[in-house]
Parts: sequence; C-alpha cells; structure tokens
Amino acid sequence: MSEKQRILSGMRPTGPLHLGHYFGVIDNWLKLQEEYDCFFFVADWHALTSEYADPTRIKGFVPGLVKDWVAAGLDPEKCAIFQQSQIKEHAELNLILSMYTPLGWLERCPTYKDQKEQLAQKDLNTHGFLGYPVLMSVDILMYKPLAVPVGKDQLPHLELTREIARRFNHLNNTDLFPEPADMLTEEPVLPGLDGRKMSKSYGNSIMLSEPLDEIMPKVRGMKTDENRLRKSDPGDPDVCNLFPYHRLMTDPARLPEIIKGCKDASWGCVDCKKLLMESLERFLTPLQERRAACTDERVREILEAGNAKARFYAEKTMDEVRKVLNFDF
Amino acid sequence: MSEKQRILSGMRPTGPLHLGHYFGVIDNWLKLQEEYDCFFFVADWHALTSEYADPTRIKGFVPGLVKDWVAAGLDPEKCAIFQQSQIKEHAELNLILSMYTPLGWLERCPTYKDQKEQLAQKDLNTHGFLGYPVLMSVDILMYKPLAVPVGKDQLPHLELTREIARRFNHLNNTDLFPEPADMLTEEPVLPGLDGRKMSKSYGNSIMLSEPLDEIMPKVRGMKTDENRLRKSDPGDPDVCNLFPYHRLMTDPARLPEIIKGCKDASWGCVDCKKLLMESLERFLTPLQERRAACTDERVREILEAGNAKARFYAEKTMDEVRKVLNFDF
Repeated sequence: MSEKQRILSGMRPTGPLHLGHYFGVIDNWLKLQEEYDCFFFVADWHALTSEYADPTRIKGFVPGLVKDWVAAGLDPEKCAIFQQSQIKEHAELNLILSMYTPLGWLERCPTYKDQKEQLAQKDLNTHGFLGYPVLMSVDILMYKPLAVPVGKDQLPHLELTREIARRFNHLNNTDLFPEPADMLTEEPVLPGLDGRKMSKSYGNSIMLSEPLDEIMPKVRGMKTDENRLRKSDPGDPDVCNLFPYHRLMTDPARLPEIIKGCKDASWGCVDCKKLLMESLERFLTPLQERRAACTDERVREILEAGNAKARFYAEKTMDEVRKVLNFDF
Repeated sequence: MSEKQRILSGMRPTGPLHLGHYFGVIDNWLKLQEEYDCFFFVADWHALTSEYADPTRIKGFVPGLVKDWVAAGLDPEKCAIFQQSQIKEHAELNLILSMYTPLGWLERCPTYKDQKEQLAQKDLNTHGFLGYPVLMSVDILMYKPLAVPVGKDQLPHLELTREIARRFNHLNNTDLFPEPADMLTEEPVLPGLDGRKMSKSYGNSIMLSEPLDEIMPKVRGMKTDENRLRKSDPGDPDVCNLFPYHRLMTDPARLPEIIKGCKDASWGCVDCKKLLMESLERFLTPLQERRAACTDERVREILEAGNAKARFYAEKTMDEVRKVLNFDF
C-alpha cells in the first residue's frame, strides 16, 4: 500500500474533546497526517478497562470522538481512522502477548499505580485493568509503526512495548516485531479556565462542540492575572491564565497590542475576554460546521474504510505470528 | 441448529494421548456424543500459556490430537471438533471478561498454585498464565452449554466460570450468560505401567498410537502384585496393577478365569501379560486403523466443519455481548 512510514496513535472514547485535547494532541496529529501514513484509533476496549462496571457511560462516545476528530481537521483521505474493537486481531495478539509479559513488569508500571490512585472510587483490581499496558503494546506492535507520538508520561508504556517485542522476538528467534521509536510531543500549553490542567472532571474546559452562547459566560468567569485587582493596575500576560488562549487562537498580529494594553493597564480584562470570545468564535465555527456535516452515516463510512485498512495490516501481522508459533499446520 | 442440549469440553495439544486419557476422559465423551450436542475443542491457546518460551514443543500436536480423538471413536458427524485459536471470538471475549475478573479470584484459584508448583522449572509468572482460568471460562460461556464434564480437580474452574458469568450479568443487568452445571466424571481407573498415575512425564504410559511391537516389552515389564514373588505364590487381583487393564480391555467373560488363576496360582503373571497383550491388540488395532485413515487433509476437513459450527454460536454470543456493552452504534 503506502510508501510512507507508519505512525500510530489513539484515544479512549470517554467524552467530548476540549481545547486542551486539541492543542495537546490533535494539532500534532494534523501535522503528522501530512507527512506520514497515520493510523488513529478509537480505543473503545481501553475505555472498558475502567468503565466495565457501567459501560452505558461510554455509549455514544465512539461516533462522538470520530466527529470531534473530523471537526478538528483529521482528514480520512489522508489518515486511517479505525475502531479498536472492530479489529479482532488486537484481542488475539493481546491474548498471545499477555503470555510473554511477566506480572512484575505490569505491577511496576508507574501509570498503573497512578491510575489506580486517581480512580480510587472504582474497583480496578481486575485482570483486564492490570493488563491494559499489554493491550497498548498490542495496538502499537500490530502495525509495526516507525514511531509513536507520546507525551512524557506515556514513555513507560512505550518502553514496556519494546520489552515485550524483544521478549517475543528473542524466545521465538525472530525479528517479527521491530521496536517503535518515541516521537516525544510537546507538553500541553493550554491551561483550564481556572488555571489548573484542562480536564472534563474539573469542569474547567471548553469543548470543541460546545455552543458559543454557552462558552461566553465561561470566558467571562475565567481567571486572569490574580495580582491585577483593578482595571487601573498593570497586568502581566506571562502569569495571566487567559493569555495562552490568545497566543493559540488570536491573530498573532494583535498580540503586541494585547501585551501592551495589559502591561500599561490601557485595557482591562473585560476587553481582553471580549477579544478572546471573538477569537474562539473564529476558531470554533469552522470546526463546528465540519462536525455538523459529519453525520452518523458518514462516521460509519469513515470507520469502515479505516477498519479495512487497519485490518489489512493486522491480518498480515497475525499471519506472521501464527507461523512463528506453529499454530497453522 | 440442533435441538439437543449443548455440552463442551476440551484438551490441550501437548502430545499423543495414552490409555489413561482414553479411560479417564474419552470414553465418557463417546457416550456424551450419542446424547448431546457436543463441542470438543483443541485448546491450543491454553497450551501456549505454559509453552510460550518454546512453542515448537507443541508443533504438530494439533492435528495429532484430532487424529487421536477420531481414532478413539469421536465421530465428526455427531460432534463438533474445533480448534480454539481459529475462533477469534474466544480472544475477544477473553479480553472483555478479564475486565470483569478480580485479580484475587485468580490468585486464589487452587489450580493456579498447583500448576506453578508442578511446572516450577518454567517461568509462569506471566499475565497470560494468571489469566488462563478466565480463558477457560470464556471457552465455556461462549457456547452457553447446559453442562461441562469435569473431574473433581476442575471444579474450582467451573465455580469461577459461574462467578464471572454472575458478575457480568449483574453489572450489565442482563441474563446473557447462563451458569453451566457440572457433570462430574468418574475418577480415572487405569494406573500407569508402574502403578503411579499414567502420565507421559513418568514414562509409564501406553499411547493410543503406539506400535504394538513397542508395547510388548512395556507389558512384559509391568508391575503386578508385589507380594507374589514366585509363580507358585497365590496373587491378589485387587492389588495387582495389571488387573485393571484386564477389567477394561479383556473380554469380560474371561475375568473369572483370570481371578481364579491368579488367586490359586494356577497361572502366572507371564500368562496374564500374554493375555493382556492379546486384549491390547484387539483393543488398539481398530483405533490405529482409524488413525491411519485420518490424514492431515481429513483433519483439516473435520476442523473446518467444527470451526464453522463453533463460530456460528460464538458470533451469536459476541453480537449479544457487544450489544450489552453498547459497542455498536
């Protein structure tokens, strides 16, 4: 098929995407889709590892995520968008590679402990949850990608992926699974409305699909430079929580004016927020138009094409695995 | 399809079957295939849980096991014979049900500890090995069988299967998985040549496919009543290791004569072994003829038909599971 090098990444369908996702992950994907043979997948089986006790909580999030991706600019003509649970080979390879994964590797995985603490209200002492880094390794190794775009916190997973690949290769005297490189992505640059990390659970997010009239009161309530108590006080964009939003979404030509106005107190936070509202409208309107045009029917078409392309590679890899394991006769 | 109640059982492809397997398991299957809609499967993924470090050790054992079954009298017209790894739905349901299985249930599973001790020379501290009782539950629940024929030592697995079914049903507010009953099988009645349990690893077995001229010296070396030192000493069939073989394979009309001859020392162990050799020949010859007639090509046909039948039920169950989990949209 394609001559370009493969890149693979995925997301759990756990709800609508917000601006933090856009500027932390998706804008990087938009660049990647121009240069590489990209595979982006909806990790619905992964969502189940933490939501198994009430899967109705993820109902509808699969098509919703695809719509958010298309809204944000992923182009199904340039990249394969697929649904993990539609490629049964992931489950097959997961079963096989779990036999090659020592329990200690999983128990020591730093994100395993983190997640269990963060989601302490859920019972995550299950065999499936302990194994989710194996499933992540499977998602990657199946497509033998050149590299995987990851944030710093995901590096242990990629290291585990390489260890599992090495162990399988070594014990079976093969070089079936190449070790994927990491393509370290920049740290997220957009804080939440209250200055903390943008996260749905903090209620400090602006969703890509959120109606503009619902966003307006949120912007009005945004935290700015806390030392600027009166409009006549000079402010500092470098410590203002609102300024990063301008840097990402306002016409760059206007930034000097914003900085000056803040520093010499010639305009107030209210003016600044009005301008941001205009920028948000300009930024979000084309996304929301693309989203509205992306029907459930269109999502099905996109996934069908993406699943078919993913399956082509997955079947190839599994044929090789079964041959190595002597399962065919 | 069939109106009969379903029964399911399987075996790992870890080498040729011996008489202990025949009289411990297969002769029960032969009765079951007459009364029920039986599914018998080659558990090749299970074999991998312990043989992952050198899967060449199981090479060829899949067709070998099917041939042994057909030799022993399983009739592909009456029962479905399938290969576990050919039904990808087992891997899919395994991934899903592993999320519903608390680690503690697996760690406390008595056979898990036993197996780890018995196979201490192998590194079985893997995620896949810890999860093998989940995979066994999957093998069963997939086909919603009425009952599962099990030995006493397998009862904890069936109890775990019911617990996993209950947990899935309860959390998803469904009755998708009925709880299978146990159909307790009799204890194995045939000791090994040396009086211990017949086991390939003890070197005390007679294989179903073993050439008769290789069996002969083995029979000559068999342990009999240890208190009978000379031919003139009276013996006791109840403590003789050879007598159970007569009970299972010699014409029942001749048993009184054997008992009398042993007890009054009118015939010796050598006579007894000669007679057993005749019985073994009469017993094994038709098996070995059926085995010789069962080519690799015929095995492929049998598995193709069995896999198709298994897949019919497996796809049905997985459609229901995905619907419950809201994975389709």
